[in-house]
Amino acid sequence: MLKVAIIGASGYTGADAVEILLKHPHAEITYLTALPEECCHIAQAFGQFTGRVNLDIEPLDFDKLSEKAELVFCCLPHKVSMEFVPKLLEMGLKVIDFSADYRLKNVEVYQKYYQTHTDPHNLAHAVYGLCELYRDKIKNARLTANPGCFPTGAILGIAPLLRNGLIHTDSIVVNAVTGVSGGGKNPSKNFHFPNMNENIYAYGTGTHRHTPEMEQIAGEIAGKPATVLFQPHVGPFDRGILSTIYCTPKGKYEKHALLDMYRKFYNSEPFVQVLEQPPHLKNVARTNYCHIYPAIVKDRIVIFTAIDNLVKGASGQAVQNMNIMYGFEETAGLK
Amino acid sequence: MLKVAIIGASGYTGADAVEILLKHPHAEITYLTALPEECCHIAQAFGQFTGRVNLDIEPLDFDKLSEKAELVFCCLPHKVSMEFVPKLLEMGLKVIDFSADYRLKNVEVYQKYYQTHTDPHNLAHAVYGLCELYRDKIKNARLTANPGCFPTGAILGIAPLLRNGLIHTDSIVVNAVTGVSGGGKNPSKNFHFPNMNENIYAYGTGTHRHTPEMEQIAGEIAGKPATVLFQPHVGPFDRGILSTIYCTPKGKYEKHALLDMYRKFYNSEPFVQVLEQPPHLKNVARTNYCHIYPAIVKDRIVIFTAIDNLVKGASGQAVQNMNIMYGFEETAGLK
Amino acid sequence: MLKVAIIGASGYTGADAVEILLKHPHAEITYLTALPEECCHIAQAFGQFTGRVNLDIEPLDFDKLSEKAELVFCCLPHKVSMEFVPKLLEMGLKVIDFSADYRLKNVEVYQKYYQTHTDPHNLAHAVYGLCELYRDKIKNARLTANPGCFPTGAILGIAPLLRNGLIHTDSIVVNAVTGVSGGGKNPSKNFHFPNMNENIYAYGTGTHRHTPEMEQIAGEIAGKPATVLFQPHVGPFDRGILSTIYCTPKGKYEKHALLDMYRKFYNSEPFVQVLEQPPHLKNVARTNYCHIYPAIVKDRIVIFTAIDNLVKGASGQAVQNMNIMYGFEETAGLK
Amino acid sequence: MLKVAIIGASGYTGADAVEILLKHPHAEITYLTALPEECCHIAQAFGQFTGRVNLDIEPLDFDKLSEKAELVFCCLPHKVSMEFVPKLLEMGLKVIDFSADYRLKNVEVYQKYYQTHTDPHNLAHAVYGLCELYRDKIKNARLTANPGCFPTGAILGIAPLLRNGLIHTDSIVVNAVTGVSGGGKNPSKNFHFPNMNENIYAYGTGTHRHTPEMEQIAGEIAGKPATVLFQPHVGPFDRGILSTIYCTPKGKYEKHALLDMYRKFYNSEPFVQVLEQPPHLKNVARTNYCHIYPAIVKDRIVIFTAIDNLVKGASGQAVQNMNIMYGFEETAGLK
Repeated sequence: MLKVAIIGASGYTGADAVEILLKHPHAEITYLTALPEECCHIAQAFGQFTGRVNLDIEPLDFDKLSEKAELVFCCLPHKVSMEFVPKLLEMGLKVIDFSADYRLKNVEVYQKYYQTHTDPHNLAHAVYGLCELYRDKIKNARLTANPGCFPTGAILGIAPLLRNGLIHTDSIVVNAVTGVSGGGKNPSKNFHFPNMNENIYAYGTGTHRHTPEMEQIAGEIAGKPATVLFQPHVGPFDRGILSTIYCTPKGKYEKHALLDMYRKFYNSEPFVQVLEQPPHLKNVARTNYCHIYPAIVKDRIVIFTAIDNLVKGASGQAVQNMNIMYGFEETAGLK
Repeated sequence: MLKVAIIGASGYTGADAVEILLKHPHAEITYLTALPEECCHIAQAFGQFTGRVNLDIEPLDFDKLSEKAELVFCCLPHKVSMEFVPKLLEMGLKVIDFSADYRLKNVEVYQKYYQTHTDPHNLAHAVYGLCELYRDKIKNARLTANPGCFPTGAILGIAPLLRNGLIHTDSIVVNAVTGVSGGGKNPSKNFHFPNMNENIYAYGTGTHRHTPEMEQIAGEIAGKPATVLFQPHVGPFDRGILSTIYCTPKGKYEKHALLDMYRKFYNSEPFVQVLEQPPHLKNVARTNYCHIYPAIVKDRIVIFTAIDNLVKGASGQAVQNMNIMYGFEETAGLK
Repeated sequence: MLKVAIIGASGYTGADAVEILLKHPHAEITYLTALPEECCHIAQAFGQFTGRVNLDIEPLDFDKLSEKAELVFCCLPHKVSMEFVPKLLEMGLKVIDFSADYRLKNVEVYQKYYQTHTDPHNLAHAVYGLCELYRDKIKNARLTANPGCFPTGAILGIAPLLRNGLIHTDSIVVNAVTGVSGGGKNPSKNFHFPNMNENIYAYGTGTHRHTPEMEQIAGEIAGKPATVLFQPHVGPFDRGILSTIYCTPKGKYEKHALLDMYRKFYNSEPFVQVLEQPPHLKNVARTNYCHIYPAIVKDRIVIFTAIDNLVKGASGQAVQNMNIMYGFEETAGLK
Repeated sequence: MLKVAIIGASGYTGADAVEILLKHPHAEITYLTALPEECCHIAQAFGQFTGRVNLDIEPLDFDKLSEKAELVFCCLPHKVSMEFVPKLLEMGLKVIDFSADYRLKNVEVYQKYYQTHTDPHNLAHAVYGLCELYRDKIKNARLTANPGCFPTGAILGIAPLLRNGLIHTDSIVVNAVTGVSGGGKNPSKNFHFPNMNENIYAYGTGTHRHTPEMEQIAGEIAGKPATVLFQPHVGPFDRGILSTIYCTPKGKYEKHALLDMYRKFYNSEPFVQVLEQPPHLKNVARTNYCHIYPAIVKDRIVIFTAIDNLVKGASGQAVQNMNIMYGFEETAGLK
């Protein structure tokens, strides 16, 4: 059994990682850590584990970590993450990092959206963990940058178009709605139930940090620069991201040709389903699936994708990455 | 026009009081106050007023208050309220107090559930503002203690039985579910959307402070001591309290006789509706109504009541009290 | 008092029309009709009226209608509406029609999206009732076509740009999310609570009938043909439409210049508020307001609008139209 | 691998049974049936299975069933169930029946609440499948009557008190709130999203058919007749039943003694957790757990229980019963 530690286990992604790893045939959770003030029995942090899971969340001790783990799920926030990751790698551990710190290859772009990057060395070797598109590199990765939730839903939606050079790479508009768990577990005015319930709104207009991540990966797939107008919204539900993506094709397409092209592209992918109608977000909740429907409307292509932000958009994809990195069946623990 | 000030206007009851008073034919809001750090244009505190209401929430200035108001809606928390009310009364203002400070006539009971009572003098003269039952006293009140939200729903449900001596006064169980606005506007872990959504749970078992209030009023109506087992719950909706009340009758009743008795009791009440089936909470949302259905099950009487916790359970009833105190039509601004 | 009848009063728009008209200072509801099988006391159709409103919904009788009404709110579905409206007009009544039957000026477009148009004569004289843009024509209208809910939110968002010729009229993408009441009151699989709760999804891709309505009005405002890619979604909340509109400007704009332009355009409008941040849908619930935020992202303009689909998107706007048609203060009954 | 068929697989309990059995180490789904008009690929009936599960729901064919199954999960409605079960047993299949047809031992009681019982012979041999209390009988059962969802939550809450003779068996009041999935998958006015959202209400006052089931089992545990006043409610969430149970103890109890007694009673139960505070319903969602908190309030005992109505209240408990009947580890597929 692969020994897995989760650092920063007290958040929603930590909880989902525990939930998934518990069912994994080849991996076991051996160590959970968090900030000292958040340490407790896991059932105190997440009541759904009461009686089901007997694990403590402890303050991080590197000696213990070294002894107990081979792989680390690093669920720390950006900036904090790159303070810990170098040490983890030095200790000979492999790392799947949930933060943004190792996703953006261009340090200047990172620094524009975040802050000074303090670990450019490891950044250079990190592999972007969008499994469907970077599988071969992930196989040999020691440090995998688990993709952002919004980029996962967006990129899976447009990858077939980009790879085949079918759209203008400056025409992409990603309109997405996330569930409230995407905002994390800390109470705030906006996410106070009487404010969020029966509500929906946009945020991060022109500034959301997942924009450069989308643009980098879209560009890599297309083989030329891509710009993405990304507009996130938050809606009154727990989980999931529904992305509605508008782009301009270079030529004319028939509905069925488009559908066939998507089916072929994702033909052997265990977690991507191409549908013949717009996906219902609820159907991917608590799964590692991405449901996609590509449509043609007037002279545009409109693609709809649905994922669970905490599973395919975070912990499920991390486990999928782990499976690839360790040569397990890619769907182990996830079907 | 009656000049009304709202002290502590930055909470949910303040917002609902503003909403109601704006439509009132005989009253106008002349002054809104809150703690300095919460002062702002009302549309900043409550976005639903954007463009509709042009009022500022200001720090309390007694001179201004004296000049601008005849009546004060005191929406302060308990303990703070009784620090301000004596001064307001001395200034010659009338007060409708939303806190618990002037509801419990027995200072010892108050002190057991809350803390030392610092204004027993005014407490002695305060009138309990459950309009349907204390209308005559309210007419002449200078200080009206606006009832608690749970007691309003509970007492209206059992008053006909108590007044007519039909039930054992030690048999009353009040099982109630409130919407999340009942917990106030401050974010907290329990009311963080991903924790409260799709959830429901009990709290305050054996300790909720509305218990002695229910017992005091139930006892007054019955003319002898009453005990109430009150168990509140909170459910995933914004507004309203659904109370399911179980009690043991002294004799045998027929369904129709019970219904008739309730209808007669509330016959002339503008805001109480006796139904022939259990009320849907949604039907009283944003109204000052209480819907009641009394039923007989086996050897018990079961009464269902539904109110909006912020309207009939707070600001609507305050306006109803104001209407009674000033001789306005009792339904003014409320229908 | 203006005597108003509501034909087709048993749906959600009927209920909201009743709610608003009850508070109107210059109008009174004198007659409510529906299909015979839906006739009942209004409180049976809509529990929220229990005890508050004493009106019966009756089968339509033209003699009674003639006697009881001056103005008819015609809340019938399309096709049915144009079977009744000619008769109503002949009887000398004025009509505000909630259906699509009198919105599309081009009969061929209507016939492509709906069916054969059986009343082209009255269609030619009907006035499109988007108050902010067609106020002068509405004043003299005998037949006002109340706008669709989605077009209301969309057009108010882009009208300033179109009127001033600032955007390419073939670049408009309207991404909208409506609450479930937009789907009407009839139970269906998709809107069964366990299917709709915690869900969100797109529908009507490339086929939604509000598309030609948006294009017609956008074209009229711009003075030249406009195409709109309109993509509706439905989300897990009762009320409201949040529209996120993407379009390509002809030149460069500064954020503040854009905001100023919008403010000037809607300066004297009582029900349009230009915000400095994306609107929260909940803030317009149960109001006749439209909240708008125009932003610039990269080389696009992105406009956010929020309305209540049943108020500004239906019954509230109908009352606003009534106010204009009868020379009442435009905000009467609506503030 | 045990071959399991699900008859009546097109409802919510069928979907959850599929979800659970798919993960079961010793059982496999070999046959799914439903009414001809509901037959389809399972992903068409339940979108969450898209791409994950490749099973068809077929019309029932007894020959096929005989060949494909050893155990049948019979998810038919009452009355229909007892038309099929005799045949299934005759064919030598074992049956876990989800309906009420084999739960009530007293045919007269059944006939009072339901209709004529057409299979008293098999009823006499059926075992009531509340695992924690009837484990020994279940081991040898050929026909297990899977308990009702409300009785499961209620009985687990009071069993320790009844078994130890600590309460008056005529004092039991069960106040329960279920999620909307408890009402089944067929659309209806009450469960139409805009009617159920932001709503909660009681139903079945004095008539709910789970009452005699609770009374029968409570009486068996207590060893003497028990009466239960059962009042169900439905609230705006998908899953779960929160039961708040009030009863009168024969003597005085201390809080800690009560808690200890519950802990001892359920000490070796894998799916019952005794908590020290009222359970949050969300914490048992999608699990086979029952969370219980027993409290003392004044002179009453108040017990809170939370289960998932579709798992511990239906399909999870059915799998638990299967595990017991076939000698599998009791938690197989359920942890």
